[in-house]
Amino acid sequence: MHHQRIRLDSLHEKIMSAAQAAAFIHDGMTVGMSGFGGAGDAKAVPLALIERARQDPLKINLITGASLGRGLDGQMAEAGLLARRMPFQGDPVLRKAINEGRVVFIDQHLSEVVEQLRDGSLPNPDVAVIEAVAITEQGHIVPTSSVGNSASFAQTARQVIVELNLASSPYFEGMHDIFLPHGRPGRGPIPIISPDDRIGTQAIAIDPAKIVAIVLCDTPESAIPMLPPDHETQAIADHLVAFFEQEVEHERLGRSLAPLQVGVGSIANAVMCGLIDAPFSDLVQYSEVLQDSTFELLDAGKLKFASGCSITLSGPCGERVFGNLDKYADRLVLRPQEISNHPEVIRRLGVIAINTALEFDLYGNVNSTHVGGTHIMNGIGGSGDFARNALLSIFVTKSIAKDGAISRVVPMVSHVDHTEHDVDILVTEQGLADLRGLAPKERAELIINNCVHPDYREALRSYFTAACAKGGHTPHVLSKALSWHINLQETGSMQVAAASV
Amino acid sequence: MHHQRIRLDSLHEKIMSAAQAAAFIHDGMTVGMSGFGGAGDAKAVPLALIERARQDPLKINLITGASLGRGLDGQMAEAGLLARRMPFQGDPVLRKAINEGRVVFIDQHLSEVVEQLRDGSLPNPDVAVIEAVAITEQGHIVPTSSVGNSASFAQTARQVIVELNLASSPYFEGMHDIFLPHGRPGRGPIPIISPDDRIGTQAIAIDPAKIVAIVLCDTPESAIPMLPPDHETQAIADHLVAFFEQEVEHERLGRSLAPLQVGVGSIANAVMCGLIDAPFSDLVQYSEVLQDSTFELLDAGKLKFASGCSITLSGPCGERVFGNLDKYADRLVLRPQEISNHPEVIRRLGVIAINTALEFDLYGNVNSTHVGGTHIMNGIGGSGDFARNALLSIFVTKSIAKDGAISRVVPMVSHVDHTEHDVDILVTEQGLADLRGLAPKERAELIINNCVHPDYREALRSYFTAACAKGGHTPHVLSKALSWHINLQETGSMQVAAASV
Repeated sequence: MHHQRIRLDSLHEKIMSAAQAAAFIHDGMTVGMSGFGGAGDAKAVPLALIERARQDPLKINLITGASLGRGLDGQMAEAGLLARRMPFQGDPVLRKAINEGRVVFIDQHLSEVVEQLRDGSLPNPDVAVIEAVAITEQGHIVPTSSVGNSASFAQTARQVIVELNLASSPYFEGMHDIFLPHGRPGRGPIPIISPDDRIGTQAIAIDPAKIVAIVLCDTPESAIPMLPPDHETQAIADHLVAFFEQEVEHERLGRSLAPLQVGVGSIANAVMCGLIDAPFSDLVQYSEVLQDSTFELLDAGKLKFASGCSITLSGPCGERVFGNLDKYADRLVLRPQEISNHPEVIRRLGVIAINTALEFDLYGNVNSTHVGGTHIMNGIGGSGDFARNALLSIFVTKSIAKDGAISRVVPMVSHVDHTEHDVDILVTEQGLADLRGLAPKERAELIINNCVHPDYREALRSYFTAACAKGGHTPHVLSKALSWHINLQETGSMQVAAASV
Repeated sequence: MHHQRIRLDSLHEKIMSAAQAAAFIHDGMTVGMSGFGGAGDAKAVPLALIERARQDPLKINLITGASLGRGLDGQMAEAGLLARRMPFQGDPVLRKAINEGRVVFIDQHLSEVVEQLRDGSLPNPDVAVIEAVAITEQGHIVPTSSVGNSASFAQTARQVIVELNLASSPYFEGMHDIFLPHGRPGRGPIPIISPDDRIGTQAIAIDPAKIVAIVLCDTPESAIPMLPPDHETQAIADHLVAFFEQEVEHERLGRSLAPLQVGVGSIANAVMCGLIDAPFSDLVQYSEVLQDSTFELLDAGKLKFASGCSITLSGPCGERVFGNLDKYADRLVLRPQEISNHPEVIRRLGVIAINTALEFDLYGNVNSTHVGGTHIMNGIGGSGDFARNALLSIFVTKSIAKDGAISRVVPMVSHVDHTEHDVDILVTEQGLADLRGLAPKERAELIINNCVHPDYREALRSYFTAACAKGGHTPHVLSKALSWHINLQETGSMQVAAASV
């Protein structure tokens, strides 16, 4: 079977075991691996590296597209394999290692990693490990369910290891659109005018002589846990649909809205599913990770086309989609993350960006990454790429967490990933605040009235009143600004502080 | 003389006094005025409006390119003329009015104002007031020393008032390149591949029937105070030149570096002047405001070409340049601020962006706008447009202010305009920190060692040590994070707190 998948005969002699392939990777090397949102990651070579690291000291600097699936990031951290890790992760074990200082983590805008490789401010990978569904007659690599940074890794690494996943649907071939901007000066535009434009090649063009190993594997796509919509996420979706309806009524949006980007996770997925019964049609996505909701909207005939850089599905949805990929192939394109998240394209298309906030504050600043201002959760991912350049930059979150011990709306966020200048709309299950064209104090009024949980509303209003008494364009009581977070650290709840302000 | 300047005869009957023209502007209107960095602003109609507002209640919502010159913003605030003001200002009197809540100010990325007018999330101006050097045979408007948002204001306003400034050099004609992106969907790329590319028209095309008034004036360009380089700014420039030399040595930059953007003000201007004697050649600028340094570099034969959206000069430099504009005309282009600051073009060209920070913190977050976290200084201006999308995002500041009472390097900034994700290089007179590819704790070490003033170094190190003891990816002691600012408020100096941490 793998002869149809490796169509350049001379490469057949490169087939070897994962352990043999992993031997190309030495201590201290920088390794670029495929994988984005747990999709399209190399599955065999990382396990072989983990095995080796458990025997002998072995540390690598690992760059990926984004998060890896199957707990690989955690296993690598546990085995002591990771010296440096970038640009994103989402694994509880790795997260703990980062926060304890055992792994150095660089949290980056996902569109920028390749720019930094290209301009030499980050070292190019010594070895790239790329999952593929096929190798073409020219020796070019056809990725599986994500593109991520794989094209750049394969082109810039000195050596390339291909993991040929025989379990991947052959219908992935043709779904990718590989385009990378040229170097500078003389770089031209990225010629995407519509989300369904194809501007590149179907495979990653490299010199096949760089392929030093091909590892066969037969491991199904990772399945991502996805919580069903609940009362709060449904309310968030309803507020957003009502807002879109109002925008259509005022002719600021048409019935097909604008190209949609939706962040990763259960809340964003539930919000997107809220569009199934909404009075919009011919929707398109220009997004990063395509989740279950993409396919539910495609199946419902609501979504015409989806552009992304990976497909990350829950178990049941994955079975349905990956088992019938031919049904979807002509309505999907997967691009390098540099292109799916490129400021140029996002600004040109006028994307509606919907991402999840960890917390936001009175004035619309958003924390997406740091619990309590200090402990990393996952990373900024693509949220900044989209929020900064979107037509509408929307952040959603439930208004409280941990049974009300935490308010997601606070006087001052403990870490800023998206500034007041980059946030248009905030939504909780309580309601929606449209901050466009408003000054800081006007935003605060709206956020207090519309977004904060009733248990925290009076406390936030008291803070704001006390702050306004001190004057300024963006009033704060500096000695109280972080008091909710401090009380959470000290007492396990923000509410103590809330009552005392 | 004005007959050569108003070349569409039918418009001659529209000539009237400033007071007559100002009568087109009614209470409650939104007015779009030319003006950017104190250049190219309307000079007569605003004075007539101020006069009226002193007699009768008159309030307008004022949108400009950026700051106005000649104290106009302050006079308008004092006369109670301003209800809402956006997207930038730099006037001490207006600043006070904003911080005291008498004027509502909306502080915006300068590239985004027109997008929000276009998509309907801000109201279009009722009346536009545009300074011009000429009106063409077609009735199109030729701006003076800035383009700013004038093209969009003139095209979207219902009525247009032109202030024909007879004191402006006729050599401004031909220097402008007016290009505006189309609406969506179907918007195409902005076809600038090189900073000297011309992609638009030389005048602002509008239906001349919209021109309701032409006011003749004869007021010279505003002169902007510009402090000469001092010991500290020279040291900042030296650190930056040494850094660029190292980048050239490592072949990450060529001898002509990359297109340069430099923020407004004496520090950034002095840094730019530091390139006059540096071993680089054939420099180009793709910037926003072109200041004295642009012309000093042009005169020195160091700079080949400069693209901007306004020319803002000191008195002596203005006399030299505006009196000999023909000498410079073929090496300059002035564009709408949407284009000079456009993420698409900045990212494509790979701009080196040098902007001034009000303060920055241990981890590289930058505050550009808010004194003490609460009181607006000027606004974010174009710094975010450039910093986010630049090849190299550089922020400069002196390490201390007010004779050492203030450290510009703090544990946690009191307001974030540019997040850790968007800042590559920090420079003070003490030294330079290259943050590229570093994790938060690595950045902190470098900033403490290289950038902070010796008077604050041990205090910042103590804070960092205490923070690290609490763990986390980005360690902080939340109860002390803003203590330096609090002590400044309470005692007039950060040093008390610095000593006690």
